[in-house]
Amino acid sequence: MQTREKLFIPGPTEVNEEVLRALSKHPIGHRTEDFSKILKECFDGLKYIFRTKNPVVILSGSGTSGMDAAIASVLKPGDEVICITGGKFGERFAEIAEAYGARVKRFEIEWGKTFDKDELENFVANSDAEIITMVHNETSTGVRHDAEFVGKLAKKYNMIYILDCISSLGGDYVETDKWNVDLCISGSQKCLSLPPGLSFVAISEKAKERIEENTTRCYYLNLKKYLKSMEKNTTPFTPSINLIFALRKSIELIRKEGLENRIKRHVKISRALRRAIEEIGLELFVKDDDIASRTVTSVKYPKGLGDDFRYEIKNEFKILLAGGQSKLKGKIFRIGHMGNVTPNDVIAVLSAIELTLKRRGFNIRLGKSIEKFLEYI
Amino acid sequence: MQTREKLFIPGPTEVNEEVLRALSKHPIGHRTEDFSKILKECFDGLKYIFRTKNPVVILSGSGTSGMDAAIASVLKPGDEVICITGGKFGERFAEIAEAYGARVKRFEIEWGKTFDKDELENFVANSDAEIITMVHNETSTGVRHDAEFVGKLAKKYNMIYILDCISSLGGDYVETDKWNVDLCISGSQKCLSLPPGLSFVAISEKAKERIEENTTRCYYLNLKKYLKSMEKNTTPFTPSINLIFALRKSIELIRKEGLENRIKRHVKISRALRRAIEEIGLELFVKDDDIASRTVTSVKYPKGLGDDFRYEIKNEFKILLAGGQSKLKGKIFRIGHMGNVTPNDVIAVLSAIELTLKRRGFNIRLGKSIEKFLEYI
Repeated sequence: MQTREKLFIPGPTEVNEEVLRALSKHPIGHRTEDFSKILKECFDGLKYIFRTKNPVVILSGSGTSGMDAAIASVLKPGDEVICITGGKFGERFAEIAEAYGARVKRFEIEWGKTFDKDELENFVANSDAEIITMVHNETSTGVRHDAEFVGKLAKKYNMIYILDCISSLGGDYVETDKWNVDLCISGSQKCLSLPPGLSFVAISEKAKERIEENTTRCYYLNLKKYLKSMEKNTTPFTPSINLIFALRKSIELIRKEGLENRIKRHVKISRALRRAIEEIGLELFVKDDDIASRTVTSVKYPKGLGDDFRYEIKNEFKILLAGGQSKLKGKIFRIGHMGNVTPNDVIAVLSAIELTLKRRGFNIRLGKSIEKFLEYI
Repeated sequence: MQTREKLFIPGPTEVNEEVLRALSKHPIGHRTEDFSKILKECFDGLKYIFRTKNPVVILSGSGTSGMDAAIASVLKPGDEVICITGGKFGERFAEIAEAYGARVKRFEIEWGKTFDKDELENFVANSDAEIITMVHNETSTGVRHDAEFVGKLAKKYNMIYILDCISSLGGDYVETDKWNVDLCISGSQKCLSLPPGLSFVAISEKAKERIEENTTRCYYLNLKKYLKSMEKNTTPFTPSINLIFALRKSIELIRKEGLENRIKRHVKISRALRRAIEEIGLELFVKDDDIASRTVTSVKYPKGLGDDFRYEIKNEFKILLAGGQSKLKGKIFRIGHMGNVTPNDVIAVLSAIELTLKRRGFNIRLGKSIEKFLEYI
C-alpha cells in the first residue's frame, strides 16, 4: 500500500527526504555567524540557479509575497504598468499593481495561447509604461511565454522588467541576466522541491537604483531593506529559519544534479508526457509544443468527465492532480511535473489516468500511453 | 557534551521534538479537504490562545508581516495614528504607519519605563487619531505595558487598537476581547515554541468593518483576503504548509498543558529569575516588577563587561543569550524565557552567568543565585 498521496500538482511538489530532515533541525539564532554562513550559501546558490550576478533576496512568504514586493518596491502611484495577462497569475500582477495605485494597461492573451510579437511590441510602443510584468510559466494554463523576447522589448523601450518565474525556475531555462530581467521572482515549493514559505527576488542594478529612489511604500515587502541586510549576510526580519536550512540542502542537491541536467530532465519528461496524453486520445489544452510548459501539462476533460475524475484518481491511486482555475474550472486538469519528478512517477500517473478512463467506459488499451512515453524518454 | 546551543534569546525559542517531527512531514496539497481540516484546528486553537471569539488569520511571514498587515489593512493615507513607542518594536509600528503615509504622533516612553496613564490619556484626548498602536511586551527593553488600559482608552476615544503581542502571547496574559484589542498580532517563534515563519492576527468586528471599507492598499498583506478565505478554511495564497503542521502540534501541546498553567509557569520563572539576578549583584534594566516582562529579562552589563561576556557564555556553555538592540547595544543583555522554558533551563543559565563572572574576576559565590531562584520557584 502506498504510504501517502503523491503530489502531481503545480506546487507543492515532492520533497526529498534529506530536505525534510534539514527542515526539522532545531532552529538556531538568526543573528549569529553560523546562520549568516548558511544564508550566504543560499544567496550564492540562488545566483547559480537564477543565472545572475546580481543579488537574490529571500523573503519569508508565499510566491505572491515576492510578486507584491517587486511591484511595491519600484512602483510609484500613478505609474503606468503594462501587465501581460493570459492566466490567473498574469492577472495577479495586474491586481497587485492596481492595489498600489498604478494605471494598469493589460495586454490580454487568450488563455492557453501566447502573445504575437508584433502586436506586443506595438502595444508597448504606444504606451508610456516604465514597468512591464509577465509570468514566464503560467501554471493556470500550462503555457510558457517567451521571456527573452519581452526582455528585449524592456531594454529597447527602457522599462523595468518584472518576471514571475515561480513555476519555471529550476525546471526550465531561466536566464535572468541574459534576458534583461530586472526583478525575477520565484518560490520554494515548485521546481526547487521545497515546502512553501519562501520567495526569492533577483534584483538588477537598474531595479536597485529605482528601489533606492522609491520612498514611502510598504514595509515588510520593501526590497530596499532586504538588499541592505543581504550585504551583511542577514535578513531585515526574523526569517523562516527552518525553511532556510531546507533551502540550503535543496541547493546542494540541485548543484549535485547540475542545473542543466535538471532542466533537461524536465524538458524530456514534459515532451514525452504530451505525446503520451495524445496517445490516450485526450486533448492537450496547449496545442503548440513550442509554448507548452515544461513543468505542468494541462489536459482537457473529455466529454462526460469533470473534477470527479481527479477525485477518483486521488482516492484510488493516491495521486493528486490539479483542476482548472478561474474560468478553466471543470474544463481541464493539470499534471504538475516539477522538481524531483522522475519518469517512473509519470508512468504511475499515466497508468492511473488510463485505468480510471477505462472504468468510466472509455475504450482504452492499458499501457498504450506508457509505451509512447517510454519511446520519447 | 551538550549537543547543540540552547536558545535563551527572545525568539526563536526551544522547539519540542514532536513539533519538529510534525514540521518535517511531507507537504500535502493546500487546496485539499485534509489540509482545510488542519487549518480549521489551527484557527480554533488560536482563538483559544488569543482569548477571542473573533477570527484569527494566519499569514506566512515574520511577525513584522502581521504588524504591517494590520496597519496596511485599516489605514488610509493621511490618517492620524498614535504610536506608543519606548523600544525598537514600538518604533517599528511608527515606521510602518509612516511608510503607508500616516501622520504619526509618537507617544514616546523612556526605554525601560512604561507610560503614565494620565499623560497618555491627555495625549489621546488632544488628538484626532482613529488608530492607536502599542507593543504589549517590548522585547528590546524587557518591559510589559498595560495593554488593558490602552484598550479602555481605545474604546472611550473610539480608536482602532492595534496591539503587538508577538512576544507575550502564550507566555503572558493576553485578553484580546476583554481588552478591546481590534488587531492583535503574534508570531510563531516566541511563546508558542515554533520555528519562525508564521504570523497571526486576531481581528475584531470593528476592525473587520474598517478592513472591508478600505480599498487600494497592498495585496499580499491585505487582511480582507485572509478573512474571506478563512470562511472556507483556507488561505488566499499558498501557505507555509509544514509550519502549519507544526502549529497544529504546538497548539495540541499548549492545550495539554493548559493556557493558564503555561502562563503561570512563565510568571513564576520570570519572578524567580529577577530575584536571582539581583542576588548575583547584577542590575535589572527594568526596575519595577509590575512592568517587567514575563518572557524576557534585561540585565545591565556591570562595568567592564560587554557583549564579549555573552560570546564567552555561548562558546563555553552553548547557551545563547541576546544583546541589547539599537540604543541599548553593548549596555544590556537579555535572557529569553519563552515557550518551553523550565526551571532547569534557567538554572543552567544562572550557573553559566555566575561562572563566567567569576572567571572575569567578579567576587561570586557559586550557586548563590540558584538558591535564590529555587526559593522563589
